[in-house]
Amino acid sequence: MKDTLAVWLQRPSVRNGIVVVILVNALVLGLETSETVMSHFGWLIRLIDGVCLSIFIIELLAKLYAHGGRFFRNGWNIFDAVIVGCAMVPGGHSVSALRALRILRVLRVISVFPRLRRVVEGLVRALPGMGSVFFLMAILFYIGSVIATTVFGESFPQWFGTMGRSAYSLFQIMTLESWSMGIVRPVMEVYPYAWVFFVPFILLTTFAVVNLLVGLIVNSMQDAHSEDKVRATDDHREEVLARLDAIDRKLDEMRSQKP
Amino acid sequence: MKDTLAVWLQRPSVRNGIVVVILVNALVLGLETSETVMSHFGWLIRLIDGVCLSIFIIELLAKLYAHGGRFFRNGWNIFDAVIVGCAMVPGGHSVSALRALRILRVLRVISVFPRLRRVVEGLVRALPGMGSVFFLMAILFYIGSVIATTVFGESFPQWFGTMGRSAYSLFQIMTLESWSMGIVRPVMEVYPYAWVFFVPFILLTTFAVVNLLVGLIVNSMQDAHSEDKVRATDDHREEVLARLDAIDRKLDEMRSQKP
Amino acid sequence: MKDTLAVWLQRPSVRNGIVVVILVNALVLGLETSETVMSHFGWLIRLIDGVCLSIFIIELLAKLYAHGGRFFRNGWNIFDAVIVGCAMVPGGHSVSALRALRILRVLRVISVFPRLRRVVEGLVRALPGMGSVFFLMAILFYIGSVIATTVFGESFPQWFGTMGRSAYSLFQIMTLESWSMGIVRPVMEVYPYAWVFFVPFILLTTFAVVNLLVGLIVNSMQDAHSEDKVRATDDHREEVLARLDAIDRKLDEMRSQKP
Amino acid sequence: MKDTLAVWLQRPSVRNGIVVVILVNALVLGLETSETVMSHFGWLIRLIDGVCLSIFIIELLAKLYAHGGRFFRNGWNIFDAVIVGCAMVPGGHSVSALRALRILRVLRVISVFPRLRRVVEGLVRALPGMGSVFFLMAILFYIGSVIATTVFGESFPQWFGTMGRSAYSLFQIMTLESWSMGIVRPVMEVYPYAWVFFVPFILLTTFAVVNLLVGLIVNSMQDAHSEDKVRATDDHREEVLARLDAIDRKLDEMRSQKP
Repeated sequence: MKDTLAVWLQRPSVRNGIVVVILVNALVLGLETSETVMSHFGWLIRLIDGVCLSIFIIELLAKLYAHGGRFFRNGWNIFDAVIVGCAMVPGGHSVSALRALRILRVLRVISVFPRLRRVVEGLVRALPGMGSVFFLMAILFYIGSVIATTVFGESFPQWFGTMGRSAYSLFQIMTLESWSMGIVRPVMEVYPYAWVFFVPFILLTTFAVVNLLVGLIVNSMQDAHSEDKVRATDDHREEVLARLDAIDRKLDEMRSQKP
Repeated sequence: MKDTLAVWLQRPSVRNGIVVVILVNALVLGLETSETVMSHFGWLIRLIDGVCLSIFIIELLAKLYAHGGRFFRNGWNIFDAVIVGCAMVPGGHSVSALRALRILRVLRVISVFPRLRRVVEGLVRALPGMGSVFFLMAILFYIGSVIATTVFGESFPQWFGTMGRSAYSLFQIMTLESWSMGIVRPVMEVYPYAWVFFVPFILLTTFAVVNLLVGLIVNSMQDAHSEDKVRATDDHREEVLARLDAIDRKLDEMRSQKP
Repeated sequence: MKDTLAVWLQRPSVRNGIVVVILVNALVLGLETSETVMSHFGWLIRLIDGVCLSIFIIELLAKLYAHGGRFFRNGWNIFDAVIVGCAMVPGGHSVSALRALRILRVLRVISVFPRLRRVVEGLVRALPGMGSVFFLMAILFYIGSVIATTVFGESFPQWFGTMGRSAYSLFQIMTLESWSMGIVRPVMEVYPYAWVFFVPFILLTTFAVVNLLVGLIVNSMQDAHSEDKVRATDDHREEVLARLDAIDRKLDEMRSQKP
Repeated sequence: MKDTLAVWLQRPSVRNGIVVVILVNALVLGLETSETVMSHFGWLIRLIDGVCLSIFIIELLAKLYAHGGRFFRNGWNIFDAVIVGCAMVPGGHSVSALRALRILRVLRVISVFPRLRRVVEGLVRALPGMGSVFFLMAILFYIGSVIATTVFGESFPQWFGTMGRSAYSLFQIMTLESWSMGIVRPVMEVYPYAWVFFVPFILLTTFAVVNLLVGLIVNSMQDAHSEDKVRATDDHREEVLARLDAIDRKLDEMRSQKP
C-alpha cells in the first residue's frame, strides 16, 4: 500500500499535475494583486487558491505517509513542508505581509524540476567554500557599524543612529548607491575627514566581493575540469606503466632463458 | 538563371555594395534627426532613404527568387526580411515610434559581416546554457512583484501599484540604481522592516547574475580548450599505446622463435 | 620556563579562551553604542572592556617574554600589538574618533583563526602582482586631478577646488556614483565639452579595474592548478622515461651477450 | 659620435635622471593648482617647469639625432614626442584647458619603466580581439541614439535633443547611473511605454560588456598557459616517441641477427 503510493507519487503524470497546480496557483496569486479582478472575481480567486492549497497539503500528507520517517531526510521535502506551512499560520489571511508569503509556494517549482534543483544545490554547495570571506565581511561590517555609530551617530541619527541603521547604511555604501552625493559628502560637511573611514571601507568590501567572485569562478572551473578529463589522464598513465612493466618482464624472462 | 543570380549575389563586389548602401542609409537616418538638415535638405534625405530601401527590397526579392524555399531555412535571411519589412508597415512614416524602427536596418551590417555574425551566434548559443538561471530569476521577480504589490502597493502606488510597476521597480533595484535613497529608505519610513524584503532580494538577484557570469566564463574557457589541444593529447596517447603494442608483439615473436 | 609558557600559549584551550575574550569584547563595544544600555549598565560595560583589554595586554606581554626577539619576526604579532596599542593612546577614551578605534581589536579574530589568516595572507600576496596596474591608476588619478583642478576648479570649487577634492570627486566618478546627473551634467552647463575629459576617464579607469580583476582570476587559477597536478605530471613523465631507459639498457645487454 | 650618444642615452644613470625630472615636473604641475603656492612661489614653479621642459626637448632631440630615421619606428618615441609637443602649442600657457595638457608629460613615466610599458602594451594588444564586440556596441549606440532622438527628442531636448546628447545619455544609462529615477521614470510619465526601449538597451549593452570581460579573461588565461607548459608537454612527447623508436629499431636488429 505504502510502496504503491510512493510509486504513484513519482509517476510523471502526477508530477506534471503538481506543476500545473503550482502554475495555476502562481497565476491566481498574481491576479489577487489586481483590485479590479478581486472586486469582480474575488470569490473565484479565493476558491481556486483554497483548492490549490488543499492539493498541496494532500500531496504532502501522502508523501509523509508513503515515506514515513525517511520523508524528513530529504531537504527538499522539508523545504516543501515549510513553504506550504507558511499559508496556514493563524491570521495568514488577514495581515498583508503574512498573506504575501503564500506566493513563496511558487518556489515549489524548484523542488519539482530536477534541473532547477541542481542549480540551487550547486549555489548552496558553493557557499561553504566562501565561508571565510563571508566571515571577514561580517567582521568588517561589525567594525564599520561600531565606528560609524560612535563617530557619526550623534550628527546623523537617521543614517548612523543605531548599530542597525549603520549596518544598513554601510550595506548601501558597499553597493555604491548614492554613497558620495547621498551620504559621504553631507557627512564630510560636518566631519571633513570622514573619507578616511568611508573610502577604505569601500575598497575593502569591494575587494572582498571580488574575491568571492574569483573564488566562485575558480571553483566552477575545477569542477568542470576534474571529472572525465582527470580520469582519462590517470587511466592512460596506468595503462602505459602497466605495458612498460609487461615488456620489462618479458625481457627479463628472455635473458634468463638464454643460457 | 537562378544559379547565376545566386552566384552574383555572393560576389564580394555586390556584398560590398550592400555594405555601402547600409552605411549611407545609417548616415541618412542619423541626419534625419537634425531639424536644421531636414529643413534644408529634407527632400534629398527622404529620396536617398527611399532609394536605399528599394535596393534592400530588390536584393531580398532577388535572393528569394534565387534560393526559393531554402531562403527561409537561413535564420539571417529571415532576420533581414523582418528588418526591411519594418519600414513598410502602413503609417510607418507618420508615427515617430514606428518611423524610428527604420534605423534597425543598420543591424543588417551584422548579417553581412561573417565575423559579426559569429559573435552574435556565439552570444545566442550561450543563452540556453543559462536557461535554468534565467528561469530562477523569473521566479524571483514574479514572487518579488507579488509580495511588493501586496505589501507596499497601497502606500506607494507609483512604484508598486501594479504587478508591472513592481517588476520595473525591482529591475531598477536589481541594477542597484537609487535602490536605497530613492526607494527603500522612503518605503522604510512607512514600513520599518521593508529591508527584510529588499536586502535579501538584492543579494539573491546579484548572486544569480554572478552565477550567469561564472557560467559564461567557464563555458568560453572549455570551448577554447577543447578543440586542438584535446585532439593532440588523444592522438599522442593512441600513438604511444600503438607503439608499445608493436614492441610487445615483437618480443612475443622472438620468444616463440627461441626454442 | 620560557618554553613552558610558549607551549602553554599555544594550547587549544588558551586560544579558545582568547577567542571568547575577543567576542565578549566585540559584543561589549557594540553595546556601548546604545545610549539606553550605557545609561543603565555603563559601569559594567566599561569594567568588562577594561578586563578584556588587560587580558590582551597580559597575553601580549607573555608572548613577548616567551618568544623574546623572535616575537617581532611574525607579522601577526606586530598586527596584534598595534591593534591593542590603539586603545592605550592617551585621550583614547575621550575623543570619539580615537575611542572608536578600540573596535579594531575585533580584527584579532583574524590572527587567531588560521583559516582567516590564510585568506588575508592570500589577499595581501595578490597585491604585488597588481602593482603595475595600481601605479598606472595612481598616475591616471594624479593627471586627472591636475586637469580637473586647473580647468573646472574655479567654477566648481566644492568638487574640484583643490587637488584633494578633485581626487575624491574622481574616485566617486570611477565608482560611477551620480557621475552624470550629479557632477558631469552640471559641469557641462558651464563647459559644454567637459565630457571629453570625463568619459575617457571613466573608460580608462574601468578598463584598469577590469584588468585587476582579470589578473586576480588568472593568478588564482594558476595557483589552483600548479601544485598537485603539475607534480603528478612531472612524476609520471620521469617514471616513463626511467622505465624506457631500463628496457633500452637490457636490450643493449642482450645484444652484446649474443655473439 | 651618434653611437656614443645612443649608448649614453641608454645608461641607467641617464634614465634615472629622466625619471627624476618627470617626477619633479609632476610635483611642480601639481603645486601649480594651488593658488597660495602660486602667489608666493609662482616664479620658481614656472622656472622649474621651463627647465624640465627644456630637458625633455633636449633629450628628444638627442635621441632623434642618435637614432635618425629609426627614431620614428618605435611607437614609444612618437608617444614621447607628442606629449612633449603638447606643451609647445602656441597659447599653451594662456588657455587653461591647453595649459592643463602639460600634465600629460607625467605619462612619460610609462615609456621609461619597462614593466609599465609591458602592461600598457598588453592592454593595447587585447583591444583588437575585442574589435567585433566594440563594433556591435557602436551599432547599438548609433541605433539607440537615432531612436531616442526621434521618439523622445521633442519632449526631452536636454537629454535626447540631438544625436550627441542622446549618445551621452545612453552612455550614462549603460553605466546604470540614475538611469531609472533620473531619466526613464520622468520619460515614462510622457511615454508610458518608454521602458520597452530602455530595459532591452540596458540588457543588451550589459551583456556586451560582460562578453568583453569574458573574452579578456579567456585570452589572459590562454596566454598564461601556452608558453612554458605547452613546450614542456611537447618536448616530453617527442622524447617518449623517440625512445620507443630506438627500442623498436634494436628489436628489429636482434631479430634479423637471429638466424
